[in-house]
Amino acid sequence: MTRKLIVELVGTFFLVLTIGQVVIDPGAGTLAPLAIGGVLMAMIFAGGHISGAHYNPAVTLAVFLRRRATAAELGGYWGAQIVGAALATAVVRSLKNVAAVTPLDPPTGAAFLAEFLFTFALVYVVLNVATARGNEGNSHYGLAIAFTVVAGAYAVGGISGGAFNPAVAIGLVLLGIVPGGSLWIYLAANLLAGAAAALLFNALDLGDDKPTSATAEEQRGLRPPGEPA
Amino acid sequence: MTRKLIVELVGTFFLVLTIGQVVIDPGAGTLAPLAIGGVLMAMIFAGGHISGAHYNPAVTLAVFLRRRATAAELGGYWGAQIVGAALATAVVRSLKNVAAVTPLDPPTGAAFLAEFLFTFALVYVVLNVATARGNEGNSHYGLAIAFTVVAGAYAVGGISGGAFNPAVAIGLVLLGIVPGGSLWIYLAANLLAGAAAALLFNALDLGDDKPTSATAEEQRGLRPPGEPA
Amino acid sequence: MTRKLIVELVGTFFLVLTIGQVVIDPGAGTLAPLAIGGVLMAMIFAGGHISGAHYNPAVTLAVFLRRRATAAELGGYWGAQIVGAALATAVVRSLKNVAAVTPLDPPTGAAFLAEFLFTFALVYVVLNVATARGNEGNSHYGLAIAFTVVAGAYAVGGISGGAFNPAVAIGLVLLGIVPGGSLWIYLAANLLAGAAAALLFNALDLGDDKPTSATAEEQRGLRPPGEPA
Amino acid sequence: MTRKLIVELVGTFFLVLTIGQVVIDPGAGTLAPLAIGGVLMAMIFAGGHISGAHYNPAVTLAVFLRRRATAAELGGYWGAQIVGAALATAVVRSLKNVAAVTPLDPPTGAAFLAEFLFTFALVYVVLNVATARGNEGNSHYGLAIAFTVVAGAYAVGGISGGAFNPAVAIGLVLLGIVPGGSLWIYLAANLLAGAAAALLFNALDLGDDKPTSATAEEQRGLRPPGEPA
Repeated sequence: MTRKLIVELVGTFFLVLTIGQVVIDPGAGTLAPLAIGGVLMAMIFAGGHISGAHYNPAVTLAVFLRRRATAAELGGYWGAQIVGAALATAVVRSLKNVAAVTPLDPPTGAAFLAEFLFTFALVYVVLNVATARGNEGNSHYGLAIAFTVVAGAYAVGGISGGAFNPAVAIGLVLLGIVPGGSLWIYLAANLLAGAAAALLFNALDLGDDKPTSATAEEQRGLRPPGEPA
Repeated sequence: MTRKLIVELVGTFFLVLTIGQVVIDPGAGTLAPLAIGGVLMAMIFAGGHISGAHYNPAVTLAVFLRRRATAAELGGYWGAQIVGAALATAVVRSLKNVAAVTPLDPPTGAAFLAEFLFTFALVYVVLNVATARGNEGNSHYGLAIAFTVVAGAYAVGGISGGAFNPAVAIGLVLLGIVPGGSLWIYLAANLLAGAAAALLFNALDLGDDKPTSATAEEQRGLRPPGEPA
Repeated sequence: MTRKLIVELVGTFFLVLTIGQVVIDPGAGTLAPLAIGGVLMAMIFAGGHISGAHYNPAVTLAVFLRRRATAAELGGYWGAQIVGAALATAVVRSLKNVAAVTPLDPPTGAAFLAEFLFTFALVYVVLNVATARGNEGNSHYGLAIAFTVVAGAYAVGGISGGAFNPAVAIGLVLLGIVPGGSLWIYLAANLLAGAAAALLFNALDLGDDKPTSATAEEQRGLRPPGEPA
Repeated sequence: MTRKLIVELVGTFFLVLTIGQVVIDPGAGTLAPLAIGGVLMAMIFAGGHISGAHYNPAVTLAVFLRRRATAAELGGYWGAQIVGAALATAVVRSLKNVAAVTPLDPPTGAAFLAEFLFTFALVYVVLNVATARGNEGNSHYGLAIAFTVVAGAYAVGGISGGAFNPAVAIGLVLLGIVPGGSLWIYLAANLLAGAAAALLFNALDLGDDKPTSATAEEQRGLRPPGEPA
């Protein structure tokens, strides 16, 4: 458990460190989402074999609801992720002029919708690429997860800032990018979206946990239904 | 079948949602194709093990002609893809000022040629990376498919908008980006290109369905022809 | 053999089509290399299981020198690649105002050096990721090859245009991007670089053809030298 | 050993060649990190099966501390990496007007922190994706490593230039991009970060060398703890 929590802390630290550095002026401009997706991909591929590489309380909630994490892990991961995010904002404060940041003023309804939809997409992708039997042993899970965040950042970053992650949202508040009074929008939208994606995933048995489903190769069209391997 | 259709609906929904958000002002500018390719890659890796992850009626037509989908699946997938695209345009309407969109005026001949060629490339890539025996179990299929769309968007996006997908074209019409009177260009070019790619794929047996062909390793040059594994 | 040649023709066609479309005004600007690398990656992953996915006479020469292609394949592939490139330039002529292209004036010495170095890198990467025993069955070969071209285009595109491929160079001449009088620079530099990379690869046995070498896992550091699997 | 050193020399040569070409005016502008990450990814996938593809003295130090390289390899790799970097700067001098470069003036404390943090991230990612049992046989290690560098370049490139690699730092000094008097910052920060990442990796047994740990599939959540494969 200790090493899982350290891996979650390290990954969330570098995610929020990169976000702060590339978003606050002078940052990476229009390429900021690529830098954010890049470090997320790297940390997912690095830490997946130890902790599952969540780095996101909404993902941990969904993995718990999908019965691949215990209640103790849910609490521990949330703590490690928030500590990692907070430590990262301290480093950003030492490297950037955080006092000069102009905070976003996210419109409540639109920001909630934007955060809900792309967090749903993110968690739906995570559960499918990292916990479904039909995708065991793949080398693409980090790419798929990271590029969901890249796409979401370009699609709705202008509305909500594009957190899709309560730990990131807390980091954005600590850096003055999101006003504290708007934090509840992110916490609610992200956690609800994570739960909704997990419930859909479980209801449709997208993890293929039930033994009667067709083989993954049949489903991907690599083999006509019913033909032996 | 139900879960396949929901996976097709979800994937096409997020594809068209991202397209609308990054194309309509203020959008992602010159990086819009990367966001579109990113969400397509993510949804392909997420849904491939359930539905094959088509998200495109031209792909479903080709998979049907390649005898890896039934006629019932062809109809169901088309319906789910169009419903997903239409739902996405409703969300975009709530987040963007769609009334201010200046529609494209695609030149018929050039737009037909552009859509035909890159949809052909797209379907040719899909059939090879996702349904050929020589590529079973790979982790790159989503990358290959998504970057065909990225390349096509940069190459001919200025001519046709770069749909390469009838469900996307319907979404572009619903958002006022493409005039309704031009929709037939996309439907015809995309479906003809999908059929043409499938017929070439079948005629050349690129799926290696016939047992007499050389092994994939010989063909990739990993082993001299005829040498045992 | 027929289907190998058609796959080479199709891949080189879409590579040169994309190059012409994104380089000639209005093109993809600073993102042109990403579009070119994207379509190359897609065509490599699509065609690798059939033809080896060379799409480049310098690569075919190197694969021949590495004894993974016959002399008949060398000639056939070169023909298919050049025909594919020429057909693509005809399509670009119908979609772009080729008459308005301002040709490059590549400086002989610097262009030769630039083309030699990055074609060497390209062929060195191809031979290692696609023909070495230590890399059998990987899902990254198209990524590695494509990003060598992306990097080379950014690194020396301002000097030589960044062909690294005689078929592409012929396409650039047919489109008026490179003057015909400079074609020899590309043909000589690219083919010499391909031969040099193959000779180095063979001399060092980078393909691990000799049975006495250590295992790939030992070499990658996954296992201490000499420890059993 | 000879071929390992040549592979290290070739990889570091092309890495530093690309850096010099895309950073010195006229370079690749805001896309320079993508070109640098691209060539690093390509060289890692190409050379990993021979030398482990370090191309970075801080990585070699960490692999030595993780007991996957001998002391002789440590010395040899460092020499090959520095020679490769120096040769690359000679080529850049022949292609670019190096005399016109305006050197960075990295602030000591901030540059040290920036170089330490992202070199730590880089080495942490390398050790996990390329030397841990839970990641054996993956096809993503080059992607993960390269995108750590891409993210770091966008995040702190404005502070330190973004070397994360003593051989690159030496190359930057030889090209006049970093003043010689600042070289010690890079050497110290990079090597200390490499050692720190290796010590953390060893202390937590992230390589899963001890036989009692849970299986990788359990850890990634692909299987409930204790359930048989």
